[in-house]
Amino acid sequence: MTQPVKFYFDLLSQPCRALYIFLEAAKIPYEAVPISLLKGEHLTGEFRDKVNRFKKLPAINDHGFQLSESVAIFRHLSREKLVPEHWYPRKNLARSRIDEFMEWQHLNLHYATTDYYRQKWLLPTLTKSCPNEELINQSIKRLESTLTEFESHWLKSHDFMVGSKLTIADLLAICQIDQPKIIGYNPFKNRKNLIRWYELVRESLGPHYLDAVQEFEAKIKAHDNQKMSIQQ
Amino acid sequence: MTQPVKFYFDLLSQPCRALYIFLEAAKIPYEAVPISLLKGEHLTGEFRDKVNRFKKLPAINDHGFQLSESVAIFRHLSREKLVPEHWYPRKNLARSRIDEFMEWQHLNLHYATTDYYRQKWLLPTLTKSCPNEELINQSIKRLESTLTEFESHWLKSHDFMVGSKLTIADLLAICQIDQPKIIGYNPFKNRKNLIRWYELVRESLGPHYLDAVQEFEAKIKAHDNQKMSIQQ
Repeated sequence: MTQPVKFYFDLLSQPCRALYIFLEAAKIPYEAVPISLLKGEHLTGEFRDKVNRFKKLPAINDHGFQLSESVAIFRHLSREKLVPEHWYPRKNLARSRIDEFMEWQHLNLHYATTDYYRQKWLLPTLTKSCPNEELINQSIKRLESTLTEFESHWLKSHDFMVGSKLTIADLLAICQIDQPKIIGYNPFKNRKNLIRWYELVRESLGPHYLDAVQEFEAKIKAHDNQKMSIQQ
Repeated sequence: MTQPVKFYFDLLSQPCRALYIFLEAAKIPYEAVPISLLKGEHLTGEFRDKVNRFKKLPAINDHGFQLSESVAIFRHLSREKLVPEHWYPRKNLARSRIDEFMEWQHLNLHYATTDYYRQKWLLPTLTKSCPNEELINQSIKRLESTLTEFESHWLKSHDFMVGSKLTIADLLAICQIDQPKIIGYNPFKNRKNLIRWYELVRESLGPHYLDAVQEFEAKIKAHDNQKMSIQQ
């Protein structure tokens, strides 16, 4: 029997959610190893030596082969496991167009959504201090312009991002947009095409997506309640 | 006869140099279309409409298919053209390890080397003003810690970055390290393993690499001379 892939993750992280949904939806056998980012479990020497030398999530171990970087993991799984073709299709150069998004997002959609989440929620939670309003405003400006770029460059058609079927580009992007959304930011104002695409992707991803988002929301709320009870 | 790939580039840019060397070394038929970054030729509406909607270099047009993002272009060429296997090997999961670097570099080696170049040379050249020493010092700190990480995580063996042969990971990385180096920064201090690897990659890349670096240097010098003659 094939050994399942060991998957190290925390659903607070957007690429972790994307990979969790992918593993579930593509029915890849895996062993879930939850790691708590807020407790700093990814920063220990043991995690560095045995799981990921970069001390980051997500990470996998596939038959002794350690791998990090969510985009590299997506590609690895698409190559090494039995994965339905629609996720990363070869036809009509779709794979090249998906790759273009997977590289573009690093310094654009990923950067902007993560930065807002960090300033608005993560840093205040970790340091038990008030958010820095000036940095949040800078973050909002970047996020607004990135969402506008995302809509105009990647949601031109009436389908998914690349062609008429759901791909890993849609999955990665919706998880990124959820990062500021779940902590109270509205990404949809004056963005009809974004709303249409978001609904389409959410419906297509089904229950695994809803599970992941619900757990993400529950984690955020649990920490917010804890903060409030300390303040009272 | 197959139409050559149209390649839009400026050798001032590190991913442009990496792709230029790759096209030459792998003998992929291409048509060179130089675009001047300093003159802002990549920012025009014509470039946006006909070449790259993101207004960035490098970009290609392969039989009418427009593609940007250097890592996506590397992968596209490796899939669609006849490219020697050693550049992006499938064996022993090397492709997954190369992908891991190609994703890691965005917010690490690429970010740090580009930021130093921007603060130290590009912004002062474009705005005809003095460099901001405080921002340069921040940039140096980031660059130092990234180079240390690069050496400890990616240059552990006595070979190339991934296995015993030259790959696109080595090519991308050496072009990134050259970016601060050519404008006067010394990346090698107390880094024996980096020196060893750098020499090995430089020798393996041969004349195409030297051509690209020489043209990069010449462009920098031409602008520095222009600046000095204005100041005198």
